[in-house]
Amino acid sequence: MSLIAETPEPSYYAVIFSSHTTDDNEGYAQTAERMLELAAKQPGFLGVESAREELGITVSYWADLESIRRWKQHAEHREAQIRGVKKWYSHYKIRIALVERDYTNSQ
Amino acid sequence: MSLIAETPEPSYYAVIFSSHTTDDNEGYAQTAERMLELAAKQPGFLGVESAREELGITVSYWADLESIRRWKQHAEHREAQIRGVKKWYSHYKIRIALVERDYTNSQ
Repeated sequence: MSLIAETPEPSYYAVIFSSHTTDDNEGYAQTAERMLELAAKQPGFLGVESAREELGITVSYWADLESIRRWKQHAEHREAQIRGVKKWYSHYKIRIALVERDYTNSQ
Repeated sequence: MSLIAETPEPSYYAVIFSSHTTDDNEGYAQTAERMLELAAKQPGFLGVESAREELGITVSYWADLESIRRWKQHAEHREAQIRGVKKWYSHYKIRIALVERDYTNSQ
């Protein structure tokens, strides 16, 4: 099974979330899993890809900026963001990017 | 030390490379390391972030589409791409995306 997101033809948006975690991972895995479940139910959600070694990278894909804005402001997601910033992430960077083209060997 | 790329103010480009590897990893680590070294010397290269679990995600950042095109056509990189497709990657997807905005807690 491929974990590569099956996104539609471009254009669409990518949210690239790059992060380093702290040593305090209490509650982190459960919240991360819950946020993936919840994100997948939002209007405009197209898919997500994630990997973590020393650095973590999660890329979520969205139909448009409005979908990204709504998800950012989702009440339960806002609570998770606040805990993330206070507790789980030592450094992070979020980039909002318009996917213009894609190439694949698997479709 | 943070592995999050210190990119300039947007806009700039991101190349999101998502992949699954085969069981044949002969030569893979050396080539991947060499490609990172080589990419970092190319005009327009801004940074790179990478993580692999079951899925691998490498995001490289570039000043413009011309820099991405030149790097794609770089002779040694082309050889590595051919070996990658034939040998190391079972599935991959490459997305070219214009980073419009970013947010961080670490600058």
